[in-house]
This record gives sequence, C-alpha cells and structure tokens, in this order.
Amino acid sequence: MPPILVVGSVAYDTVKTPFGQATEALGGSATYFSVSAGFFTRVFLVAAVGQDFSEKDWQFLETRNIDLQGLEKVEGKTFRWVGEYGYDLNDAHTIDTQLNVLAEFRPKLSETHQNLEYIFLGNLDPRIQREVLAQVHKPRLVACDTMNYWISGHFNSLVETLRQVDILIINDAEARQLTRESNLIRAARKIHGWGPQTVVVKRGEYGALMFQQGCQGRISVFGTPAYPLEDIYDPTGAGDTFAGGFMGYLSGIGRSDWVSLRQAVVFGSVMASFNVERFSLDRLKNLTFTEIELRYKEFKEMTRIDDVVEWQPMSRL
Amino acid sequence: MPPILVVGSVAYDTVKTPFGQATEALGGSATYFSVSAGFFTRVFLVAAVGQDFSEKDWQFLETRNIDLQGLEKVEGKTFRWVGEYGYDLNDAHTIDTQLNVLAEFRPKLSETHQNLEYIFLGNLDPRIQREVLAQVHKPRLVACDTMNYWISGHFNSLVETLRQVDILIINDAEARQLTRESNLIRAARKIHGWGPQTVVVKRGEYGALMFQQGCQGRISVFGTPAYPLEDIYDPTGAGDTFAGGFMGYLSGIGRSDWVSLRQAVVFGSVMASFNVERFSLDRLKNLTFTEIELRYKEFKEMTRIDDVVEWQPMSRL
Repeated sequence: MPPILVVGSVAYDTVKTPFGQATEALGGSATYFSVSAGFFTRVFLVAAVGQDFSEKDWQFLETRNIDLQGLEKVEGKTFRWVGEYGYDLNDAHTIDTQLNVLAEFRPKLSETHQNLEYIFLGNLDPRIQREVLAQVHKPRLVACDTMNYWISGHFNSLVETLRQVDILIINDAEARQLTRESNLIRAARKIHGWGPQTVVVKRGEYGALMFQQGCQGRISVFGTPAYPLEDIYDPTGAGDTFAGGFMGYLSGIGRSDWVSLRQAVVFGSVMASFNVERFSLDRLKNLTFTEIELRYKEFKEMTRIDDVVEWQPMSRL
Repeated sequence: MPPILVVGSVAYDTVKTPFGQATEALGGSATYFSVSAGFFTRVFLVAAVGQDFSEKDWQFLETRNIDLQGLEKVEGKTFRWVGEYGYDLNDAHTIDTQLNVLAEFRPKLSETHQNLEYIFLGNLDPRIQREVLAQVHKPRLVACDTMNYWISGHFNSLVETLRQVDILIINDAEARQLTRESNLIRAARKIHGWGPQTVVVKRGEYGALMFQQGCQGRISVFGTPAYPLEDIYDPTGAGDTFAGGFMGYLSGIGRSDWVSLRQAVVFGSVMASFNVERFSLDRLKNLTFTEIELRYKEFKEMTRIDDVVEWQPMSRL
C-alpha cells in the first residue's frame, strides 16, 4: 500500500453558511486532503503552521494515518481564512485571508519524502509546486490542483508545472479559465497538450467528469453525478476532500489504469459527499470505512444502466 | 408495441445561435417529441397548424411513424417562435412569439386517440392538459411537461393537472420554481406529494436526474451525466427530444418499472444529445437506430462503476 505525499496549506477557517458557523476550525486544502486520503493509505503531509497551532489538532492528524514529520511549526501565526456561503452554497465569498506563515513557506522534503512515488501538489504557487517535484527522486503519479489566482497571475509558470503533472484536478470554472474554452472536451484536449494525460473536472452539485488522452486525438470520458443530499451544511473543503479520496485510493492500490481512475473518481465523490454533511472536518472525523463502502455501492446503484434485451426498435427507421 | 399520444405545439422556428441560423424551420415541442418518439413506437400527434403549414413537412412527419389524423389544419397561421442563443447555449432568449392558431387550440380526440394508454401532455395550458386527459378512457402512463409561464401564472391549475400525472418531466429551474425548493430531493418530494410518483429533472449539459417515490418517505434516485459533445450547434428542442426518447421507449416496451425508467432516461439523453448536433430537426432526420444503440452503449461505458475487489482499506479507521 504505497503512501502518498501532499504539499499544501493547513489553516484555521472561520466559515459562515445559512445553516451555522464554525470559528477558527481546523481547515486548509492539505488538511482536508490528508484526512480524506488517510482512509485509503498512509499520508505524508508537508506544510507549515504557526506557533498557535494547537496540540489537539496535531494529535488529531496523527491519529488519521498522517505522518507529520513534514509539518513545520515556524515563527508566526497559522494561515487564516474567513469565508461565507449564500443559500446556493456554490460560491464561497472570501471575507479575509491572512497568509501568515504560508507567505514564506518553501517546502523542504526529507529523505523519506524524496523517495515517495505518489505526489499531490496542493493549491500553491506553481513555482513552489515545481520546487517540490524537483526534490522527488522517482515520481510515479503526480496530481495537482490550482486556483483562479495562479491561472490569471502566473499562467506561464502554471503551464510549466503542468508539463510534469499526470493528473490535473480542478473545477469546471477553473478549467474554462485556464484554457479559455467553454467546452470541457476542448478544454481537456488543451490541457492534455500541456502534459497531464488525465483531467478531472469537479462540478460541485453536478458531479465530476474525467477525461483521458487516447491515441490519435481520441479522449476517453467518465462521468458521475454527485450524490444527492437533502441537507448540505458546509461545502468548505469539498474539492480537497474529493482529491484526497481520489489520490488516496490510487495510491492505496498502487495503480492508475483507467478502471482504477474511474473508481477513484467515485471514491473522491463519496468522500466529498460526506464532508459537506457537517461543518469543518466534523463528518470525516466520525466516518467509518463501512460507510464509505456503502456509499460507493449507492453510487454504483444510482448510475447503473442496464442492457436493453427484450425489444426491437421500429424497423423502418 | 403500444403507441403513444402526444398533445402539444407544432411551430415554425427562427433560431439564431453563434454557429448559424435556421429560418422558419419545422419545430415545436410536439414535433421534436414525435420525431424522437417515432424511433421507438407509433406516435399519434394531436396539434393544430395553419393554412401555411407545408405539404413537405406534413409528408416528412408521416414518414416518421407519426399518425397525423389529429393534426388539425385550421384557418390562420402556424405558431411562430423566434429565439436566439448566446455562446453558453444554455438559455434561449425569446425574441418573438406568435401564437396564431395555437391561441384557439382545444384538442378533440378521436375514438382511436381516446383508447390510447400512453399519454404525453406537452407544454400547454394546464387546463387544456386536463381536458385532454378527460377524453382518454384508460390512461396507463401519463407524463407531462410545463414551463415557467404556467408555473407563475397558473400554479393552482397546474397542481390540479399534476394530480392525474404519473411522470413530470421538467428542467431544474422549473422544478425549483414550481416547488420553491432549491434542493432537488426536497423539490421531488413536494412534487411526489401532488401526484407524480416519478420526477425527471433535465439539467442540460449536466445530464438528468430521476426521482421515484418509495415507501415511508424513501426516494430512489437515478442520475446520468449528459453525453459530452465537442460541438453543440442548436439546443432548440433538446428537452422535447429527451421527453420523446424517454416516453417513446417506455411506450414501445409497454413497461414502466424502475429498470425501464432508468433505461428510458438514457434513451432520452441519447436522443437529446443527437438533436443538438445540428440545427432544427436536421440530425434526427438522418439518424439511424444503430447510432442510437451505439450511443446507449457509450453512455453505459461512460458511467460504469466497477466493483472494488483487490483491496482492503486502512484497518485503523
């Protein structure tokens, strides 16, 4: 069961939704990713926190199959994010961002980290993403995330990072912004041209699509709707939780063929669907693997298409 | 192979998209529905056209397994719709609507029509939808469509119609407007309470969801993404073409159990995906059943989720 390396942010989030509020709750893209991936394999987390990072949170992460030798505790305060969601719960409105220790973060990998083969580059400056990759000896599967800030302000640097990436995991708005293509197949084709053979497009309540480059311009597509939930409390971290389930599963089984990639999209969707059921990491904290397996089966049942056997169409057409 | 009765509009459409234009092209909700359903079963079309309705269009419909004894040619002009789509192709902007003969349309069913069992009530005044149903002797499966105009202006009448309907086929915006619920499960639950045990929600480029009322407040869900297309020329009639494939298939096999309903959603999605590839009815005109079957298989392949067999999760969680 090969472990996975993740580099990204650990934060304290203050989030308000129409259904409640969480204040200074443990968050950050790498945190959601790690806790989610920890259900599937051992996770090596590389990130920086400040002196204010609580012992309780440190210990919690250690109980989730997460190795913290790469979690640097440095001078200053932990990254803070304050956000709010309206009733549609689709777009987060950022009210305040305090980079704090993240501003100076330059990941240094230990010998152990450098020998890891499954790598997830969280949403960071693309230049830093490349610095991380340069330290890894034999990367076997590299996935990355990004966001509108890097797409608009550091486009060329981002494309340079993508050259070394196997799987890009982004949302549909980011895919369109990055490629300037509104059509997602065309967007995927463009991204394939830059490097990643696989593009996973997260579409929030509409589910996810995955595109894989084939021979002679052909593209394979896998799609799944999102798990329908009657109550969604807090979408914070849904995308990172998806990525954690997706990459955690691939790393855990040590494979990335098309069948495994499809299963990974479902595990990503399963993990994200649990995460939004409660505030912060609350749902992931109480989640069991039996629940994950059950919801995986529900996805299978929800999307199953049966063969048509008993019937012939109108003969004339 | 039980036939189906459809009541709705036949029109001449003038449509502009960023990719071209169609002028006074054969259209209308009942037309798209009938041509689509005609691939699966015999269709009895009940609608009104004006003296300007062309002989060529009449003959075309007759070649598509469509019985036209219920297509009344009356004094006046055929219904006209003029619309335009922007680059996102999601919302039609209506530029002009001329009801013409549709303004006075009161469907009168023949003896043959009255004995049909599969009924599709196209997007008409809910009072007229009920008048049609009142003439049918033994309806076995009744589906209906509606639109924002009837939801906002004739809400009570629409709910009265829904009492007699088995399947409501609408888009997500209409489902939310009708029920004043942003969450689609809650929306479906409310619609179930009014009558329809099955609710099919069309989501355009995001595919379709189907909800079915079960015992003790339980709801079964089926979902499929839309077929990914690189080029979409004209979305006009996509929803009606979906409904035609959906109901045409159910009528054709004479069943409406859960497995058949799921297959029907896929056939609806297949037909809609073909329709948007060309302007007006152009793609449906040249479509073959072999192509329909192939795309059905592609849907199955695109959404298939394999069992996870070779692997055990982290034991500690």
